[in-house]
Amino acid sequence: MSFLRPRRVAHAHCDLMCGVYHPAQARIEAESVRAIAQKYQDSDDDVFRQRCVIIKEKHAQLVKEHLWVLWTDYFKPPHVEAFPQLHDLFWRATKKAGDAKKSMDPAVGDELLGLIDEIAEIFAETQK
Amino acid sequence: MSFLRPRRVAHAHCDLMCGVYHPAQARIEAESVRAIAQKYQDSDDDVFRQRCVIIKEKHAQLVKEHLWVLWTDYFKPPHVEAFPQLHDLFWRATKKAGDAKKSMDPAVGDELLGLIDEIAEIFAETQK
Amino acid sequence: MSFLRPRRVAHAHCDLMCGVYHPAQARIEAESVRAIAQKYQDSDDDVFRQRCVIIKEKHAQLVKEHLWVLWTDYFKPPHVEAFPQLHDLFWRATKKAGDAKKSMDPAVGDELLGLIDEIAEIFAETQK
Amino acid sequence: MSFLRPRRVAHAHCDLMCGVYHPAQARIEAESVRAIAQKYQDSDDDVFRQRCVIIKEKHAQLVKEHLWVLWTDYFKPPHVEAFPQLHDLFWRATKKAGDAKKSMDPAVGDELLGLIDEIAEIFAETQK
Amino acid sequence: MSFLRPRRVAHAHCDLMCGVYHPAQARIEAESVRAIAQKYQDSDDDVFRQRCVIIKEKHAQLVKEHLWVLWTDYFKPPHVEAFPQLHDLFWRATKKAGDAKKSMDPAVGDELLGLIDEIAEIFAETQK
Amino acid sequence: MSFLRPRRVAHAHCDLMCGVYHPAQARIEAESVRAIAQKYQDSDDDVFRQRCVIIKEKHAQLVKEHLWVLWTDYFKPPHVEAFPQLHDLFWRATKKAGDAKKSMDPAVGDELLGLIDEIAEIFAETQK
Repeated sequence: MSFLRPRRVAHAHCDLMCGVYHPAQARIEAESVRAIAQKYQDSDDDVFRQRCVIIKEKHAQLVKEHLWVLWTDYFKPPHVEAFPQLHDLFWRATKKAGDAKKSMDPAVGDELLGLIDEIAEIFAETQK
Repeated sequence: MSFLRPRRVAHAHCDLMCGVYHPAQARIEAESVRAIAQKYQDSDDDVFRQRCVIIKEKHAQLVKEHLWVLWTDYFKPPHVEAFPQLHDLFWRATKKAGDAKKSMDPAVGDELLGLIDEIAEIFAETQK
Repeated sequence: MSFLRPRRVAHAHCDLMCGVYHPAQARIEAESVRAIAQKYQDSDDDVFRQRCVIIKEKHAQLVKEHLWVLWTDYFKPPHVEAFPQLHDLFWRATKKAGDAKKSMDPAVGDELLGLIDEIAEIFAETQK
Repeated sequence: MSFLRPRRVAHAHCDLMCGVYHPAQARIEAESVRAIAQKYQDSDDDVFRQRCVIIKEKHAQLVKEHLWVLWTDYFKPPHVEAFPQLHDLFWRATKKAGDAKKSMDPAVGDELLGLIDEIAEIFAETQK
Repeated sequence: MSFLRPRRVAHAHCDLMCGVYHPAQARIEAESVRAIAQKYQDSDDDVFRQRCVIIKEKHAQLVKEHLWVLWTDYFKPPHVEAFPQLHDLFWRATKKAGDAKKSMDPAVGDELLGLIDEIAEIFAETQK
Repeated sequence: MSFLRPRRVAHAHCDLMCGVYHPAQARIEAESVRAIAQKYQDSDDDVFRQRCVIIKEKHAQLVKEHLWVLWTDYFKPPHVEAFPQLHDLFWRATKKAGDAKKSMDPAVGDELLGLIDEIAEIFAETQK
């Protein structure tokens, strides 16, 4: 059960006060985005494919929201000094989530997951 | 980065189609609920404490929603046969999330986390 | 005006405190779900049919949410003892609401309405 | 079970297409608003009373939203000709829902319920 | 920067208390509605056009919500006396926003913008 | 009516496709935030002040959301080259919106409005 009792969960003072942040929230939504694009490709049912478009739109939006919260609320000025690529990385990741709304290509979902992993690595560094 | 590339992420057919479920979503929100109750206890600032009440309400609601989705969408009849306590466990866990709205005692958050861990153990069994 | 002044409206202690619950909320949404599936069948306009898919998705989701709240917040352990089928009935009803997202067949809406009626009968029993 | 199989449920063409409208949705939320104001009066627990303020705010907002949808989407120009008080009645009812956010007096909830009943009577007339 | 420091921003007592209202909120959403309908017409990509339907639905809903808030919360009885067309104008404008969900014709968006401009003129009069 | 027919409204290709963006959306919400903090200071009514805390929380959240959308969806790499302070400015502005949730001091609202004005000036430059 180590996955569900992560020692790495953040405990920082923030405007939501709770101090609990984790890139896993964005990643789980991005996994959905990627999986839906694949299911769209594997189907030839019109209604099913329309629902893929609708539902992928929502999960890609949740990716954006989780990333924005992480960027604004978790990271502090010393983090930005230590990781000067931080702003641009979040900008590209949230833009990529926007691309993943537009595209039904699972490869865009993979690129999105790659950017979230980069963020997660920095996050893990700040938790040490 | 093993936390963020969990092999145990579910890939099941579901009404949302994406097949990605994970008890971590409920757990992260429950961590917030518990942390906010503690911060409430540690503060004597009126506005801060009122915001604790408001924000804990939202995160406890998110716990409920993530658990409900997991219960209805991820679990299938064979799971209920294998784990006959499943329905009651989810019922008690979502009721506990309701208790955690009412109470400012971090112990209620701990009980909620305990029930989510029980669900996560069953979930992990079904992923083998 | 008896419909709008129901004596049978529940007044129980709950985590939302208000004590007002009623299966009519889920039923009205399920009526929408059923009606939209029919309108989809009766139309051959592409945009209209796409909007049917989008809007049915939302109402079916509201069915789920109203049922989940009823299950977790209104019903208490003595109810489950008296009506041992309760958990399974709610599980099947919320799963059926998921099916009603997927299907454009009004018959699925009818099945959903049937399950909500079963819940409403139990609810009415508990109000006596 | 006549309550849950209302013959009076509206089936009109509307921008949501489903044609299912009912003043019961606003009324159930207004019942909550009234009940919460009463519970606030009956309690002397600070956190409980703060939660009353938070949750009443939400239910009063739902009253407004259900009424606005009914006004804009269900009623048609011939209804307004037949019931010239319609616009003003909805305006006063939604304003009263606003008052019910501000006030912890259950009497405001009663006034709100009274206005919703006036709307429901007109609605019932249009269903004949 | 005069656009962003409008002297005409309303400061009235209201159930949201903040006193800040402005028809610009509805207008910006209606601009989106109109622009999306045009982009739909200019495209022959299936997924893109489906997304137009989905997203226009949301912005047209936001138009309705901003207008409803303005109608119920900003305007007061003396305004209705001075501008007796007010109720009907808001009713037609919110109905037009409903039409703009149904139609992919940019002309409907133009009509919606026209009605919002009529509201804005009255609003400006009340701010003098 | 020049305010409501701004020539400066953005028409860019974006993941929402509509191309309509405007800092006025964030500014109107920030005006609310500031006004609510002032009303809190001017009142000694407990329920009124609790509602100020609740409602300011929501409007400050809307400020964040409008700013995040503007940052990710409107601005493009050439803008960041021309305005290298852009990322940091949005980061500080959204953090300030978080501060404005915590504080009941209208001065924090003023600082937030100042940062939104800086963003609006850059936005106006990009519209020329």
